[in-house]
Amino acid sequence: MKIHRERIDLESHTAIEFMDISEHVQDVVDRSGIREGQALIYVPHTTMGITINHNEPMLIQDFMRILYRLVPVDDQYSHDLFELRRETMSDGRSNGHSHCKAIVLGNSETVPVEKGKLMLTERQNIFAVEFDGARKRDVVVQVTGY
Amino acid sequence: MKIHRERIDLESHTAIEFMDISEHVQDVVDRSGIREGQALIYVPHTTMGITINHNEPMLIQDFMRILYRLVPVDDQYSHDLFELRRETMSDGRSNGHSHCKAIVLGNSETVPVEKGKLMLTERQNIFAVEFDGARKRDVVVQVTGY
Amino acid sequence: MKIHRERIDLESHTAIEFMDISEHVQDVVDRSGIREGQALIYVPHTTMGITINHNEPMLIQDFMRILYRLVPVDDQYSHDLFELRRETMSDGRSNGHSHCKAIVLGNSETVPVEKGKLMLTERQNIFAVEFDGARKRDVVVQVTGY
Repeated sequence: MKIHRERIDLESHTAIEFMDISEHVQDVVDRSGIREGQALIYVPHTTMGITINHNEPMLIQDFMRILYRLVPVDDQYSHDLFELRRETMSDGRSNGHSHCKAIVLGNSETVPVEKGKLMLTERQNIFAVEFDGARKRDVVVQVTGY
Repeated sequence: MKIHRERIDLESHTAIEFMDISEHVQDVVDRSGIREGQALIYVPHTTMGITINHNEPMLIQDFMRILYRLVPVDDQYSHDLFELRRETMSDGRSNGHSHCKAIVLGNSETVPVEKGKLMLTERQNIFAVEFDGARKRDVVVQVTGY
Repeated sequence: MKIHRERIDLESHTAIEFMDISEHVQDVVDRSGIREGQALIYVPHTTMGITINHNEPMLIQDFMRILYRLVPVDDQYSHDLFELRRETMSDGRSNGHSHCKAIVLGNSETVPVEKGKLMLTERQNIFAVEFDGARKRDVVVQVTGY
């Protein structure tokens, strides 16, 4: 049993962005040499999430609308006032809503690996979801198996 | 350390359905021969989710109501218009809402295995949740351990 | 490859409570002696969830507000009527909303372990989230690796 870990470097370009990292994750699996096992895709950040779904631009627009409605940007978040008062608000970002969106999606997903391939069907894509961009980001991929 | 993987075949009978697969998953653990480790329960689909909770019919009705309210069926989803125009809408299904419900639940859960048994308490059941039925479906169960 | 499992005993003091268990989880990793691998943090309960985010009191207040709005306490939940009629409602608790909040967060998170440390950045904390307190509770931590 082997463990192979890599960081994927990303750069988001807008405030909220679904970044399709499926090919990057498969590349890590390829480099690991692991044929049977699983891949953990994990974000070491508090204003990002991981999800798996179909990469269809109109569907992503639907996802964004649902997430905006669950956690509206134009609400008042206590976190923003706290950071403002403490002068810890980085670059003047009010990102209370970003943290709240992140906890809906969760920090990781795990995908089984069979014969060296992620068990994703044709319409499944792995997204690193940015809720507080634009920023430089990274995602950890850890492949376990033999 | 051993990896044992099986697919569980399912068939949903309604549009939204909580399918209790706890016994099926335990059967896979039994057949794996693994006594200590963990079971990954993963859906290779974009309009299904996995969750663990109490299998009590009234509670499931509550879950459905919450999910309907978060992601109403009677909203307009851009994904549905896209598929309609591209003539890729399978069987005339408008399932934009199904994808959006799926990302709230997530694609997998992982449960520790102790002495050959899933560490589920009396009121915990594993559900494969259908959001775009009725359909034939499958779920991947991967047990890792020794 | 080794598997090390422990239960962390907790006690919640209010109905809804974000309990920061990051140090407890790191202690389990330390005791496991595992340097490279991953930690599964899992709740064997149906009215609790696990999430990872920043432990900032105002932000936790924002999380609670979002969760209350998604799943209001003052709605009527069929589960509560069911348990009331069956006389299985423990201590007169109406906790339909607690179960519904739990399925939004999910039962577990998995965090990679590098050089004996959980791969958490400075602002990431692991929370066991109580939705039906005050109660005595436990959380399972399972570390796998070498």
